[in-house]
Amino acid sequence: MESLTPENMKSLMNVSLGTVKADLVIRGGDLVNVYSGELLKGFSVAIKGKRIAYVGPDANHTIGLETKVLDASGSVLVPGFIDGHAHMINYASPNEFLRYAIKGGTTTIVTEIMELAFTSGYEGLVDWLDKVREQPIKIFSTVPPCITFSRAAREKTPTLEQLMELLKREEVLGVGEGFWQEVLRGKTKYPALAAEALKLRKSVEGHAAGCRSERLVAYAGFGVSSCHESVSAEEVVEKLRLGIWVMIREGSIRRELDAVSKIKNINLDFRRMTLVSDGVNPRDLVKNGYMETVVQRAIDVGFDPILAIQMVTLNVAEHFGLDAILGGIAPGRYADIVIIPDLQTIKAQCVLSNGQIIVQDGGLRVEPNVVPLTVQGPEEIRVNPSDFVIKANGNGPLKVRVIEQLTGLVTREVFCDLSPDHGELTVDLENDLLKVAFIVGQEKIFTGLISGHGLKTGAIATSGVWEASGTVVVGADEGDMAKAVNRVYEMGGGIVLYANGRIQAEIELSIGGIMSSLAIETVAQELANLQEKAETLGFRFSDAPLTLATLTTPAIPFLRLSEAGLVDVRNGDVVEFIVS
Amino acid sequence: MESLTPENMKSLMNVSLGTVKADLVIRGGDLVNVYSGELLKGFSVAIKGKRIAYVGPDANHTIGLETKVLDASGSVLVPGFIDGHAHMINYASPNEFLRYAIKGGTTTIVTEIMELAFTSGYEGLVDWLDKVREQPIKIFSTVPPCITFSRAAREKTPTLEQLMELLKREEVLGVGEGFWQEVLRGKTKYPALAAEALKLRKSVEGHAAGCRSERLVAYAGFGVSSCHESVSAEEVVEKLRLGIWVMIREGSIRRELDAVSKIKNINLDFRRMTLVSDGVNPRDLVKNGYMETVVQRAIDVGFDPILAIQMVTLNVAEHFGLDAILGGIAPGRYADIVIIPDLQTIKAQCVLSNGQIIVQDGGLRVEPNVVPLTVQGPEEIRVNPSDFVIKANGNGPLKVRVIEQLTGLVTREVFCDLSPDHGELTVDLENDLLKVAFIVGQEKIFTGLISGHGLKTGAIATSGVWEASGTVVVGADEGDMAKAVNRVYEMGGGIVLYANGRIQAEIELSIGGIMSSLAIETVAQELANLQEKAETLGFRFSDAPLTLATLTTPAIPFLRLSEAGLVDVRNGDVVEFIVS
Repeated sequence: MESLTPENMKSLMNVSLGTVKADLVIRGGDLVNVYSGELLKGFSVAIKGKRIAYVGPDANHTIGLETKVLDASGSVLVPGFIDGHAHMINYASPNEFLRYAIKGGTTTIVTEIMELAFTSGYEGLVDWLDKVREQPIKIFSTVPPCITFSRAAREKTPTLEQLMELLKREEVLGVGEGFWQEVLRGKTKYPALAAEALKLRKSVEGHAAGCRSERLVAYAGFGVSSCHESVSAEEVVEKLRLGIWVMIREGSIRRELDAVSKIKNINLDFRRMTLVSDGVNPRDLVKNGYMETVVQRAIDVGFDPILAIQMVTLNVAEHFGLDAILGGIAPGRYADIVIIPDLQTIKAQCVLSNGQIIVQDGGLRVEPNVVPLTVQGPEEIRVNPSDFVIKANGNGPLKVRVIEQLTGLVTREVFCDLSPDHGELTVDLENDLLKVAFIVGQEKIFTGLISGHGLKTGAIATSGVWEASGTVVVGADEGDMAKAVNRVYEMGGGIVLYANGRIQAEIELSIGGIMSSLAIETVAQELANLQEKAETLGFRFSDAPLTLATLTTPAIPFLRLSEAGLVDVRNGDVVEFIVS
Repeated sequence: MESLTPENMKSLMNVSLGTVKADLVIRGGDLVNVYSGELLKGFSVAIKGKRIAYVGPDANHTIGLETKVLDASGSVLVPGFIDGHAHMINYASPNEFLRYAIKGGTTTIVTEIMELAFTSGYEGLVDWLDKVREQPIKIFSTVPPCITFSRAAREKTPTLEQLMELLKREEVLGVGEGFWQEVLRGKTKYPALAAEALKLRKSVEGHAAGCRSERLVAYAGFGVSSCHESVSAEEVVEKLRLGIWVMIREGSIRRELDAVSKIKNINLDFRRMTLVSDGVNPRDLVKNGYMETVVQRAIDVGFDPILAIQMVTLNVAEHFGLDAILGGIAPGRYADIVIIPDLQTIKAQCVLSNGQIIVQDGGLRVEPNVVPLTVQGPEEIRVNPSDFVIKANGNGPLKVRVIEQLTGLVTREVFCDLSPDHGELTVDLENDLLKVAFIVGQEKIFTGLISGHGLKTGAIATSGVWEASGTVVVGADEGDMAKAVNRVYEMGGGIVLYANGRIQAEIELSIGGIMSSLAIETVAQELANLQEKAETLGFRFSDAPLTLATLTTPAIPFLRLSEAGLVDVRNGDVVEFIVS
């Protein structure tokens, strides 16, 4: 993914002038011109090496005896899709993820990689950056500001100097999402990283969930140039007006296209609006595909198809300052092109990346080949049921702070009056009160109470947690909790549902405790299996591993977990579990 | 013009949140939001230091006892105007130029500086860059690819390594215009500079006058991201489709808004369309002003006012990758704001730059203060009438290549059958055949013939020539030519009209032979005087110094001058003057 060299320039010139012949010519298709916003009838594209040499109504002068000619008559050529806010680290290994991500026409991914910062530190980030560079499609990353509620995780993250160093790398496009509350609170590395990114003409990714008015303006003043957390057209408008690129999210975490789609009826300049996944899990990826689904959905909810395509091509490229090398079908750009049947049908008949046909007739023609990551899983520990005992004195009722799970992602704090039983606070299945624990080491375990999950028996544990490194477990029984957690560590990381005396379902996540070495289809199937079993046992949300994973994040309101106890997202403080 | 620092960020945050008060608040105006493309009624802007801290419907929480409040009720706030393709070096000295440029609301200038490369080399460029940095408005430059037909000028220009070094400077935004014919010919420094600029995420300015189809595509393949030479809507469309930013020119060289204005009726994405001056001379600047006139003109020819404003603000900022720091009224950006009476009337009531009120009630409140440039004028030489003798043997007619001046800028080659008179080719006033010479040193003089200028007597000489360093003289008489040229050198550079035994008009250009140490009003008046006198003597074009200046440029077709003889712009070759 280098920029143009003088040699490239001359070679492309010679092809355009017809004095040297193209390697590949796509002929006869209609072309979506994302710069002018037009559908141009009957355009041809000539490619030399990895790049586009010529675009125009007639490329015959670039065709020689050795030129491969692809007939695209009756089809439409669009630039390869870009996911401007991805979480590639989403249970599947990079190769497995790419096998499915590539198929639908995504040719560039900009991914967050904070997951590796918390679990594997500087070495983990470098390992990733070194190994995902040379793939059939382009993978860029952002340097994480490493905002976490977990002290253990914080200690693993790189120093500011190390992050600054990573920021200079060509495949790093800027600073990753910095959650607005923590940024405004003023104790993160984000401002220093943002300042450095701006100096390097790179971007500063934001995360302004629920942030409005003065606070949003204050947040924008940190140089924040994107947010992928808008849930209404009003929020979209407010951010666009502040010069922020609005990334409409449609992925496994949330799907917001429908809710914000009325924006299309407002007469606004949409150059700063993009579509992103914010992460797609193996189940969704295998079943539905990747960015092509998002574009299709945008068209289905009524966005003009050319705008929908601009939102995953030029608009994203401009946001990241990549538009000189990709994001449109124009001379000098990488030949990243998707051929689709028509403007209403985002189904890749053929995908070119770097001038190479990587997908044809729905099948991969070039396999991703990421060298296996060498990041370590969590250090093995063994826990006992007694580790999840909550000691409490007295006979009378105590005022206890409980996490109430409102949706699969959002929690709030509630206060319950609970009476200790033999010096312990226990689960109360009738009132849907379960134990929840976060384990970062043999001696670093916090156990609290959670309501709303609905589990009637057993326990679910996962090492794939957000903005932390460790294992979250929710359970109806301390013995099952210990069994689940120990199995997670036995596998070197994973997700386990343990109930009724046996493992009901498990997914190995032995790569850093967050990615699996298994085939993505297996991971997807096991995740579905675990979810089904969890629901049989009473679990009430649609994605159990996600609900558990987010219990440690500073990104979503309101009450979260750390090894030091409960944390209030509104102020970042550890708050008392037993209040009085 | 630094990017945001962590200290800035915190300070802006505090103002937006109301915990620290703003330095200045503009209250009650309507605001042109260039990001969303809206006119927002009743918006306020709070400024801290040089930057915008808060924008919103109500800034009362940012106002303290020390806050200066500017009432803008009934007026409209727009971002400061940017000239994305300027030639600041246009007879007036930087200070004199700025005095007028600032008044109308221009707060950022991106200027070519090749003029200094040819006359003063590396030291001239460094002198400029060092001295124009800290002005009331922002001045950025581009590094010239130094394309010239003059060997003497080429020898003065910096080495590739020196130009690469300059490219790294913060106030340098990319590579300056590289004339397409010369670039495609493959012998310039442009590809190497362009590649380096792209690597630095900087821009590559183009110059594609008359370039269409395959050749335009080939040129774009050099990473060229702008062109300011479109003369029709068709050309605009063709370039936009190639991802090129189209800079519509409206300045002293040419005015193209009218000719391309029908573009506004086509349903296109205009994010890559901008308005530029390409240079405004002292006469126009003093009389009509600067970018405000261009915006007004765009509105007058029917462009939507918000689009017209986007074309001199956000669109230009995005082109140069400056949009994180300027180009819109948004948090974190420099407070560069123009207050105008209404959307149809581009007349600055007040101009803020870097948070400072620099213009109020039409008057400058802050003077530019560029330290005088130290670039040297041309080395003094003295020429004699005999230097302009064209020796030719034989009695019969010779086929001679003559420059025919078609317009004030465009020439073509014509062949005349001329008979030597006593071994010389002479002027032929009845047939409007004058002598034209280019002098770069005592021994380096080429004298040829030119038609179309119309001068009946006398001579005009100028050291302010394009893409070269030396003096061009056109005359009806060798004696007058020598007088005019010698006076130019006596002044250390200048423009002189000599006729009827005396200097009819002169403008001193003692700064590098290209800029005057005089007040801009004087320069403007003397230029007008010279033009009037020249016309009295028969000169047929509207800007004599410009017509002479462009006789050395590789940028405009078809036949030009160098000290080695006539040059054919189509192939860059020196061609025979006396053909046979």
